[in-house]
Amino acid sequence: MDGVLERIVIPALSANPCVRRPRVVIIGAGFGGLSAALRLGRVGADVTVIDRRNHHLFQPLLYQVATAALSPADIAAPIRGILARYTNTDVILGKVTGIDVPGHAVLIGGRRVPYDQLIIATGARESYFGHDDWAAVTSGLKSIEDATTMRRRILVAFERAEDTEDEAERRRLLTFLIIGGGPTGVELAGALAELAKAALVRDFRHIDPTTARIVLVEAAPRLLSSFPPRLSEVAARALERLGVEVRVGTRVTRCDDCGAVLGNERLESRTIIWAAGVAASPAASWLGVEPERGGRVTVGPDLTLPGHADIFVIGDTAQVTSPAGPLPGVAPVAKQQGAYVARVIAARLAGKPPPAAFRYRDFGNLATIGRREAVVDFGRLRLTGRIAWLAWGMAHIYFLIGFRNRMAVAIDWLWSYLSYQRGARLITGQDM
Amino acid sequence: MDGVLERIVIPALSANPCVRRPRVVIIGAGFGGLSAALRLGRVGADVTVIDRRNHHLFQPLLYQVATAALSPADIAAPIRGILARYTNTDVILGKVTGIDVPGHAVLIGGRRVPYDQLIIATGARESYFGHDDWAAVTSGLKSIEDATTMRRRILVAFERAEDTEDEAERRRLLTFLIIGGGPTGVELAGALAELAKAALVRDFRHIDPTTARIVLVEAAPRLLSSFPPRLSEVAARALERLGVEVRVGTRVTRCDDCGAVLGNERLESRTIIWAAGVAASPAASWLGVEPERGGRVTVGPDLTLPGHADIFVIGDTAQVTSPAGPLPGVAPVAKQQGAYVARVIAARLAGKPPPAAFRYRDFGNLATIGRREAVVDFGRLRLTGRIAWLAWGMAHIYFLIGFRNRMAVAIDWLWSYLSYQRGARLITGQDM
Repeated sequence: MDGVLERIVIPALSANPCVRRPRVVIIGAGFGGLSAALRLGRVGADVTVIDRRNHHLFQPLLYQVATAALSPADIAAPIRGILARYTNTDVILGKVTGIDVPGHAVLIGGRRVPYDQLIIATGARESYFGHDDWAAVTSGLKSIEDATTMRRRILVAFERAEDTEDEAERRRLLTFLIIGGGPTGVELAGALAELAKAALVRDFRHIDPTTARIVLVEAAPRLLSSFPPRLSEVAARALERLGVEVRVGTRVTRCDDCGAVLGNERLESRTIIWAAGVAASPAASWLGVEPERGGRVTVGPDLTLPGHADIFVIGDTAQVTSPAGPLPGVAPVAKQQGAYVARVIAARLAGKPPPAAFRYRDFGNLATIGRREAVVDFGRLRLTGRIAWLAWGMAHIYFLIGFRNRMAVAIDWLWSYLSYQRGARLITGQDM
Repeated sequence: MDGVLERIVIPALSANPCVRRPRVVIIGAGFGGLSAALRLGRVGADVTVIDRRNHHLFQPLLYQVATAALSPADIAAPIRGILARYTNTDVILGKVTGIDVPGHAVLIGGRRVPYDQLIIATGARESYFGHDDWAAVTSGLKSIEDATTMRRRILVAFERAEDTEDEAERRRLLTFLIIGGGPTGVELAGALAELAKAALVRDFRHIDPTTARIVLVEAAPRLLSSFPPRLSEVAARALERLGVEVRVGTRVTRCDDCGAVLGNERLESRTIIWAAGVAASPAASWLGVEPERGGRVTVGPDLTLPGHADIFVIGDTAQVTSPAGPLPGVAPVAKQQGAYVARVIAARLAGKPPPAAFRYRDFGNLATIGRREAVVDFGRLRLTGRIAWLAWGMAHIYFLIGFRNRMAVAIDWLWSYLSYQRGARLITGQDM
C-alpha cells in the first residue's frame, strides 16, 4: 500500500486501537482552527482545542457591534458548544505561552499539553508599522472587548459634544478618523455615517449629529485594493454619498489623543479608529523561526513547517504564496486551510497517501457600505447596489455559526432596516 | 378658580408663554424617572433627565443576562432614544454629586443644573448590612456590568473546575451560593440550575456540570416573603426539583473568597452571589435629611420632601407607607409614583388643584423558577406551574421598552426553550 511510508515516518499516528490514540492539538478557535477541529471530530484521534477566549468570533461582523447594530452574542458562539457533539474533542481555555518543539508539547504557563500533530491557527493582531505608541490613542477591532470599547468611545464622543461649551472641542469630538481603507475600514465608515446621520439624528438637543465628520484615510491609491478598480470606485462614491470624506494615497505620520497628521495636514479628532495593519500572532517566536513580513510563518505546500511534518501553520499566521501572490488574511483562506490540514491528518491516520498540495479556491470578495449598497466580486460576476447588499447580507447570515445567531442577526438587521434605529446603543464598561 | 392658591405658592410654574418656561429636572432614568419624563413630555415645561448611564435598564430581567440567556441590549434601551420624540426633554449623561437645595440646582461636579421642580428617582444599590467587605467577595446585580461580570464568574468557575486536578478546589468551584431568597435570588437560582443541568451538560469532558451544587440561603423563615405562604412553598419545591438546596431561616455570618458561614456551618464556594439587601442611593445626604432604614427619604402623601413642595422623591429612594405597611422596592411602585408626580406637576402648571394623595395600586407579584414554573399572585388569582410561567413571560415581554427588544427577547427565549441552550454564553471583560 502507498501508505506504508507514511506509517514509518510518523509511527505515533497508528489507527491500531491497541496503541495510544494520536493526539492532535489545535491552538486557536478562529475560522481556521475550528474548521480543522470540526473535520477531525470524527476521526480516531484525540483533539484538543486551546483558545484564550471561550468563544469563536465571527470577525467580519465585529464592526457592527462597534457601531451598535448587533450585540456581542449575535456574532460569537461558545467553542465548547460548537464542539459539544464531538466527544473526541476537548477544549482548554488558556493562554499559550510557548511551544516545546523538541518535546512535542504546547505550554500554557507551567502546564504542558503534549501533541503528536500540532495545528497553529492563532490569527493576527493589530500592527502599527513601528508606531506602537499609536495603540494607546486609537481603537482597534479584533475582539468583543475591542468592539464594545469602540462602541463606548463613539457614543461617548457624541455625549461629550452635546455637553461641551467649547466649539473647537465639539468639532474635535464630532470628527471621526478611520485609518485603513480595506473592507473593515470601508464597512466601519459606512456604518458610522449611518449611525450619525440616521440613528442618532433625533437624540440630541445641542448638537446636530448629521454634522459629524467621518474621514477615511488610506495610504494606497484606492480603497479595497483586493477588489477590481471599478468596485473600489463604486465604494468610494457610495461612501461619499453617505457623507464620508475619502482620502486615498494619504499616509498618516502622527497620531495623538486629539488628532492625527494626514500627509501635510493636521486633523483634529477625539476618535481615531485603526483598521490598517495586522501582524501575525507570536507563533514564529514560539517556533524559533524567522518571521516573514507581518510576522507570518512560511510553510510548505502541505502547510507544514519546513523540517517538522507534525507542525501545521494556517490562516493569518501562515505565509502561503499562490501563483497570484501571497494569500490574503481572510476567513475563507483560513477555513480552507483548516479543512485541508484535517484531510492530511486523516490520511496519515488511515495510512493513505497525503492529498495534493494546498490550493486556495477564491469564491469572491464582499464588502458593504451602509444600507442598500455593497460591492461583490465573484470573479466574472461583479455586483453593486441593492442586489450586492442582499448577497452580502445572505452570505453573512448563512456563515454565522449556530441557528440562534442567524435568527438573532436577521431580526436585528430587519429592525434596523425598517426603523433606522440601532438596538445596541449601550455605553457600558465604565461609570461616567 | 381652585388653582389660584397653587399659583401663588409656586409662582415659577406659570403657563404664561411670556415668562420663562418652568424647568423640571429628573435625576435617574429608571422605572420611576422615565415614567415621569414620558408623561411630562407633552406639558409646557422644559424637562431635563440626568443619569450616569446612557440607558434605561429593565432590571427584572438582569438575572437572565447574568445566566447567559439574554444579551445586555435585549434588556436596555438608550434614554435619548426613548425620549427622542419629546422635544421639550433634554438628557444629560452625568453623575450627580449633590443638590444645592436653597439655590435650586442639581450639581454634576462643578456644573449646576437649575430646577423649578425636582424629581429624585435614583433607585437603590446593594447593602451588606454593615459588612461592606463582603462587596469584594460577592457578585451583585444592579447594572449591565454587574450582570456580565457575574456571567463571566459563573462560566469561568466551570472552566477552572474542568482544568483543576485538586478535587477540593473542584468542589468549591462547582458550588454556587446565592444569598437572599427574594425574587432575584429565586430566579437566579432557577436559571443557574438550568444552566448547569441542561445548557452546559455536554460541554465538558473532565467534570459533570450536573453535579454543580446551588445553595440558596434566606434569613427569613420562607422564600419570597412578599408572596402568600403557599406560593413560597411552591417556589421552594420547584427549586428543589431543579436540584437547588434551599435553606431558609439561615443567617450568613461570614463571607470570604472561598466560602461563607451559614448558621453554624461553613460552605466552601468560589462563587457567592449577593441578592439580599439594598439601600437607597445617597439622596438623603444630598438633601441633608436623616435617612430612614435602608437609606430611604421619607416623603409626604404627595411624594414631596416635607417643607419643600418643589422636591419629589420616588421609587426605591422614597419611604412611603401605605395602610398595608411600607411600599416595596419594585418597578410598579416606581412607575406609578413617577406618573403621579407628573400629574401633580401638570396640575400646578395648569393652575388646577393637585390630585389626591398618592395611592399604590398593587396589581400583583410574579416570579419564575426556570422553564415552565412560576408563581403569580394577582391577589385573588394565584397561579403556579406552566400557566404562571406563560403569564410571567408575556408580562415581561409586554413591559420591555421598545419593539425591537420585545422581538429579540421573544426569539431568544423561544430558542432557549426549544434547544435548552443559552445564546449569550460569552466570557468577556478580561483576558484569560
